[in-house]
Amino acid sequence: MKIGGTHYRTIWPESDGAVGIIDQTRLPHAFETLKLSTLEDAAHAIRVMQVRGAPLIGVTAAYGLALALRADASDAGLESAAKTLAATRPTAVNLAWALNEMLTFLRPIAPAERAAAAFAKAAQLADEDVETCRRIGAHGKAIIEDIAKKKDGPVNVLTHCNAGWIACVDWGTALSPIYQAHDAGIPVHVWVDETRPRNQGAALTAFELGAHGVPHTVIADNAGGHLMQHGDVDLCIVGCDRLTAAGDAANKIGTYLKALAAKDNGVPFYFALPLSTIDWTLFDGVRDIPIEERDARELTHMTGRTDGGDIVTVQVTAPGSAGANPAFDVTPARLITGIITERGVSPASREGLAATYPEYARSAA
Amino acid sequence: MKIGGTHYRTIWPESDGAVGIIDQTRLPHAFETLKLSTLEDAAHAIRVMQVRGAPLIGVTAAYGLALALRADASDAGLESAAKTLAATRPTAVNLAWALNEMLTFLRPIAPAERAAAAFAKAAQLADEDVETCRRIGAHGKAIIEDIAKKKDGPVNVLTHCNAGWIACVDWGTALSPIYQAHDAGIPVHVWVDETRPRNQGAALTAFELGAHGVPHTVIADNAGGHLMQHGDVDLCIVGCDRLTAAGDAANKIGTYLKALAAKDNGVPFYFALPLSTIDWTLFDGVRDIPIEERDARELTHMTGRTDGGDIVTVQVTAPGSAGANPAFDVTPARLITGIITERGVSPASREGLAATYPEYARSAA
Repeated sequence: MKIGGTHYRTIWPESDGAVGIIDQTRLPHAFETLKLSTLEDAAHAIRVMQVRGAPLIGVTAAYGLALALRADASDAGLESAAKTLAATRPTAVNLAWALNEMLTFLRPIAPAERAAAAFAKAAQLADEDVETCRRIGAHGKAIIEDIAKKKDGPVNVLTHCNAGWIACVDWGTALSPIYQAHDAGIPVHVWVDETRPRNQGAALTAFELGAHGVPHTVIADNAGGHLMQHGDVDLCIVGCDRLTAAGDAANKIGTYLKALAAKDNGVPFYFALPLSTIDWTLFDGVRDIPIEERDARELTHMTGRTDGGDIVTVQVTAPGSAGANPAFDVTPARLITGIITERGVSPASREGLAATYPEYARSAA
Repeated sequence: MKIGGTHYRTIWPESDGAVGIIDQTRLPHAFETLKLSTLEDAAHAIRVMQVRGAPLIGVTAAYGLALALRADASDAGLESAAKTLAATRPTAVNLAWALNEMLTFLRPIAPAERAAAAFAKAAQLADEDVETCRRIGAHGKAIIEDIAKKKDGPVNVLTHCNAGWIACVDWGTALSPIYQAHDAGIPVHVWVDETRPRNQGAALTAFELGAHGVPHTVIADNAGGHLMQHGDVDLCIVGCDRLTAAGDAANKIGTYLKALAAKDNGVPFYFALPLSTIDWTLFDGVRDIPIEERDARELTHMTGRTDGGDIVTVQVTAPGSAGANPAFDVTPARLITGIITERGVSPASREGLAATYPEYARSAA
């Protein structure tokens, strides 16, 4: 997608052999790019969320492995780098998926050729992600188009967190249908959940929708249920950090609450995700998906821009009060209308996902 | 309740004829008191939420009427002042209730005696509020005590927004049961919803629980559903801005989402409120309770304290993105376990409320 008329991906090879990224911790107040030159740069970028979003984390880990091999291409170096990268964000299954893809591809290759091969493979994963997101968008666009035919005025889509192009390499998952509907002239308006803590909605989703010219309104995470009660939301589309083989979906904390409200008000609720987000080994998401507990400072402190243009961090909680910060929750399959995938819209069930991805589901049986 | 060893109410008559309040917009970063000397001071204090919380708004309006009468005690002055005060916060039914109590009492009194009579009546409403909140706490404490008997470790209570002593004259509504349980030696731990926008949980509830020594943890509004899924919440108690005669409850935006999660996980969900919060003329809350739309700046900007101790306001949303800020939502009676009142715990239903308050329900039939 474009920023200020220039097309960007979220990650790209630089001419000097480094890997370029957008520093997402600086958005929306400043648009800055960074160069990753080492394994530790890449691990740090994932850990502190300079890159975030399940697909982008996977591609960054792939490039991180390539950077590591440039320093140490031995078998031990390869395995150790993969271990370092895998530990950066325990909940994101795309991270493990991308590292496995890379390891399977790189292990048989001679150490002397590994670094170059790894860069080529990482670039291929990036290209594949773009095509996957484009397809997710095409399938999701059809859902928006159906609703547009039945109503006057814009289709109101609610989304939570950021599953846009900035969470992927391009297009996005949850936002790809919105971009494609908007680009096709279908009137769309997006309710953007602020998404506490870290405010990825208010900061990133609002930023990228605004940059692309999509009408949108930021709301508190608390507001969605009220809007649904009053008919102001036509559908919800969110991204996903891990989907079980039975259709339970882990996503940014608070997604479950919106899914409950959607169910209570007859609003369709979709998760948009690629194959790489599905964990075929798990079935009961609430019981089995590990939930990352992040630093309470993400809750107690907020960073923003003063009227004078300074970027300042302030404490917003009462001094001395402790905070807890579970980063994800799990939406049970029973609350999900469908899973928008690169292969079409699948029911959120073991049978539905098996029909959509027969070759993967079989291997887990 | 006490702050730094000194007992405070949230509103009190000053020796110079003014009315003292705690400036709640400065909490938790600074504890400052203000003097209200005129009708406009009182209306401003309610409008900008220097005082907030349904019961305290009502008592402040009563004192505001008394201040107005000191300047103009004519019939026209009385009615005009009541109109000004009624317009400050359209959703809070206690405001209308307190003004009606005052008007009914003051209209037959000769103008020359009205101001003094109004101050005495306002003080009486304040005392009655303290006693009402004490009773609500005693009934709610019994619920906490029952849970404590059946489990090891502290009773985990989740609350949303601030319905503590700082929202009332003393004790609070939703927090009164917690204070009374804590003071009786029952182990209690409170999950404090941050409560966006305005952060009344992170700022005020955390502040007052901390000042009184009650164990508590601040969480994002998004986190409650996840905690309930994992058995970490024993019950929810929240305050209420308006309850219909059929038990639908308007409260700070986001309350409805927590009630849905509680229902989905078998967690009891209580509203704590006095008679004055009940609107006997309304039955269908979602349809009929007007919801205040507040300034989007409450969402787009946040105020906090820098490490250096300065109080700074920063913008946290993407520049140029619009915001919407509905301040309340309505929780349908079907999601509510019970209404904790000064007369005991009532079912959230027309029949239940009529049985608890027969003399009022009859008058609406």
